Amino acid sequence: MVSNVISNSQFVRNAWYVAAWSKEVGRSLLPRTILNENVVLFRKQDGTPVAMTDRCPHKLAPLSMGELVGDLVQCGYHGMQYDDTGRCVRIPGQPPIPPGARVQSFPLAEKYNAVWIWMGEAALADPARIIDIPYYGEPGWALVDGQYLAFETNYLNLTDNLVDPAHTSYVHKRTIGNAGGEDVPVKVEQSEGRVLAYRWVKDAEPVPIMKKYGGFTGNVDRWQYYHLHLPSNSYVDFGAVATGGDNSEASKQNGFRSFTYNLLTPETAGRTHYFWLHLRNYALDVPEVDADIERLYRLTFEEDRDILAAIQKQQDKTGVREYVKLSIDNAPSRVRTLIQRMLDAEQKQVAAE
Amino acid sequence: MVSNVISNSQFVRNAWYVAAWSKEVGRSLLPRTILNENVVLFRKQDGTPVAMTDRCPHKLAPLSMGELVGDLVQCGYHGMQYDDTGRCVRIPGQPPIPPGARVQSFPLAEKYNAVWIWMGEAALADPARIIDIPYYGEPGWALVDGQYLAFETNYLNLTDNLVDPAHTSYVHKRTIGNAGGEDVPVKVEQSEGRVLAYRWVKDAEPVPIMKKYGGFTGNVDRWQYYHLHLPSNSYVDFGAVATGGDNSEASKQNGFRSFTYNLLTPETAGRTHYFWLHLRNYALDVPEVDADIERLYRLTFEEDRDILAAIQKQQDKTGVREYVKLSIDNAPSRVRTLIQRMLDAEQKQVAAE
Amino acid sequence: MVSNVISNSQFVRNAWYVAAWSKEVGRSLLPRTILNENVVLFRKQDGTPVAMTDRCPHKLAPLSMGELVGDLVQCGYHGMQYDDTGRCVRIPGQPPIPPGARVQSFPLAEKYNAVWIWMGEAALADPARIIDIPYYGEPGWALVDGQYLAFETNYLNLTDNLVDPAHTSYVHKRTIGNAGGEDVPVKVEQSEGRVLAYRWVKDAEPVPIMKKYGGFTGNVDRWQYYHLHLPSNSYVDFGAVATGGDNSEASKQNGFRSFTYNLLTPETAGRTHYFWLHLRNYALDVPEVDADIERLYRLTFEEDRDILAAIQKQQDKTGVREYVKLSIDNAPSRVRTLIQRMLDAEQKQVAAE
Repeated sequence: MVSNVISNSQFVRNAWYVAAWSKEVGRSLLPRTILNENVVLFRKQDGTPVAMTDRCPHKLAPLSMGELVGDLVQCGYHGMQYDDTGRCVRIPGQPPIPPGARVQSFPLAEKYNAVWIWMGEAALADPARIIDIPYYGEPGWALVDGQYLAFETNYLNLTDNLVDPAHTSYVHKRTIGNAGGEDVPVKVEQSEGRVLAYRWVKDAEPVPIMKKYGGFTGNVDRWQYYHLHLPSNSYVDFGAVATGGDNSEASKQNGFRSFTYNLLTPETAGRTHYFWLHLRNYALDVPEVDADIERLYRLTFEEDRDILAAIQKQQDKTGVREYVKLSIDNAPSRVRTLIQRMLDAEQKQVAAE
Repeated sequence: MVSNVISNSQFVRNAWYVAAWSKEVGRSLLPRTILNENVVLFRKQDGTPVAMTDRCPHKLAPLSMGELVGDLVQCGYHGMQYDDTGRCVRIPGQPPIPPGARVQSFPLAEKYNAVWIWMGEAALADPARIIDIPYYGEPGWALVDGQYLAFETNYLNLTDNLVDPAHTSYVHKRTIGNAGGEDVPVKVEQSEGRVLAYRWVKDAEPVPIMKKYGGFTGNVDRWQYYHLHLPSNSYVDFGAVATGGDNSEASKQNGFRSFTYNLLTPETAGRTHYFWLHLRNYALDVPEVDADIERLYRLTFEEDRDILAAIQKQQDKTGVREYVKLSIDNAPSRVRTLIQRMLDAEQKQVAAE
Repeated sequence: MVSNVISNSQFVRNAWYVAAWSKEVGRSLLPRTILNENVVLFRKQDGTPVAMTDRCPHKLAPLSMGELVGDLVQCGYHGMQYDDTGRCVRIPGQPPIPPGARVQSFPLAEKYNAVWIWMGEAALADPARIIDIPYYGEPGWALVDGQYLAFETNYLNLTDNLVDPAHTSYVHKRTIGNAGGEDVPVKVEQSEGRVLAYRWVKDAEPVPIMKKYGGFTGNVDRWQYYHLHLPSNSYVDFGAVATGGDNSEASKQNGFRSFTYNLLTPETAGRTHYFWLHLRNYALDVPEVDADIERLYRLTFEEDRDILAAIQKQQDKTGVREYVKLSIDNAPSRVRTLIQRMLDAEQKQVAAE
């Protein structure tokens, strides 16, 4: 059972998280806090990305304040050099290298223009476990990616939000929600490692973004399918067709449709990296629409960011997560329960070792 | 006995505090922290002011981030609606309303252009207990009101200050004090719920503000009567008459006289809302003097604000309130003792319930 | 034995620390935090510097918010006056002065354009224990003094750094270090109250500052002698002679040579005052070089400041000081051990009293 008292400082370690967009990682040292650990990212000369603890074991200087020497990271304080496995290979003025002179390196995988990191047991780091993005790079789909926002909230407030279509009627009235959905209940499905919260809003006014780009002349049947790939990668299948059709998968593919991937990486107990990308089946090859989609979704996520930061402050002040549970909390509760099970399993595993 | 060790986090709840000036409260949602609680203020369509906890019991979102729908407060996250008693009357998509879906509402009273709040037991919230301001709106008195400063200090440092005429000789030499008062002792009187510290400085040079507006040609007899209406509403009866008169109440009414009301509302353990208004019997109907009085008193209170913020920092650092007590601390000590009794009585009452 | 776990909040009290440059102390009240105590500094009318606790024992107002009245410090809140011994000599309106009405005053000594403070047992405050600066004011030596930087790091991270010539090859490549020294081991000597870490880098390229001002045409033999006068006054004897000479003291005096005095005063557990002055035997009486030396060394110390602030953050985050010890840590470890002995001895002394 998930308690209502908050314990935000635990993170699922055996999972792939986006560490950075590919474009961010190059031949300089990029510091980033991930699961409350200081990590430094860079690419080797052959382009392979590398991640390791951003803290020299000597005096604790951040390695990111040093420099790259070939494929080695050189500490900026005393010149100790580390290879891509985190092993120290040079201590200036001291040939023997003590065994403690090493930092942890982390498995990485590069996919979908992102560098994914595995902060848990390295042996389990199978890139096949990265969330699948079926239409990525496919013809018929326009892509906006490389997007990022910093959220001042624990990632579980965000996973709550991302299996919660109901909030869009209130928080996002300017873009992806409207009053038509207010009283439409949310259904929930659960499968191995996944939770889905969804609803159809039928014979309703299109929401603003549909009005702008959907070309609808009357009411629509619109859908919101909020998928969560545990622990914290989300995608939202969102679209509309003219009211009166069969609402089949085929008609959805011919309707107005987008998939938004929200790839959350806990930064600390109170902060979350929010990487996102967006695929749409309309207005292909129109750069102005790309720019507008980027703007509209950024606006939408900033609305989430502001309310979730305010909620975090209240949680910090009261020590409580919620005082009353609603039916729309079914999916968020399941997500928290499943994440707690993942955390418990990892703790048991660590204790066993 | 009041200990010298600081316990700043307790507040008298059964008392009227200014929550806001009337002009601040309207048809939008005003967030304000009062006695360390998050409160939201607004007016109903008929103009009645309303205050309730600024925290939705569902996910803890501040209600002030939502909107007014008629006389209901609608949470900005999922659209739950609360009436003016704090009861939830609508949960979108979920007809039954769980009993926990409510927030606390607080009794209010509107008087002297201010909205007063009662954070304690509602049954005791009698508006007759609001401090009386006799000359407010009376002919022969000019009013400057609607004034506010934020103090980064516990309210007890301010109540100390407001039964302490002696500090004016040093802190406020530019406005309401001068060296003439330095060695004049302070007398103290105490009655039910009130403490008064006062002194007459006789045959002395007028202080700057009297020089500017009093029209005196020679020395004056001037008075400082610092009244505290417990726990934290103060008024200062301050004025002067030409030296050599009888110093009767009648001569004071014909002399240079003002009443400054300092209405303190604890915000947190380390911050205090300082609402103030000023009544004077000179330069009536001269807007330039209104503006100058506002400026001069703001300057005066900013002098208090700076020294009391520095004192708060030292109290936080040392954990101590004072190391040596002087005779001028008689009134501040009585105030602290009486407030402690009020706190103890409230705690006993709460424990009994 | 010095533990690897950090205890930063203890300071050696029986030692002379620079409180301020002489030019900073005058006829106004200068507040400064030293060994985590609030101190106020000023000069009497005859020019004698005075230091006392910057906190009135009445209500804890900082005395530095008051004013000087002749040689007395007058509190800005109620006008209590303190003489240069810290004794209260006037309480307005109250002739008898309670015995607790006093603040601590601290022994001072003025030397080398600096005001030195003794925060420990006054009877031990012998100015002869101030670090000696032999060439200060001597002919043949140019002086840059009166320099200051604020470091956001515990002073022990700075004492580590100041018996560590090895870091200059990496941190200060733009000024006083280069790759020539990378693999040259550091030697250590210890004597009563002092630790010395040093090395000669022979037949090597001059470092940037030597190239600029040394007039060398080929390789040099250069030296780095890092002296620490416990607990926290450092001087660095630094210079070069043309390769192939005898490297005697006489040849060093005729070579390119400077002495940098780094006079550290702990401010709090996480902050350190860094006063420094520089003596050189080249480019005498050239104000442009004075200005350039000031600039270059400020740049150098800012490099230290940035890395040591980052290290402090990591120490705060991990609670650990280092994970692996290198041979270059010999001198820093000795310094920490000796300082710990000084702290223990002072604690024993205090316990005995």
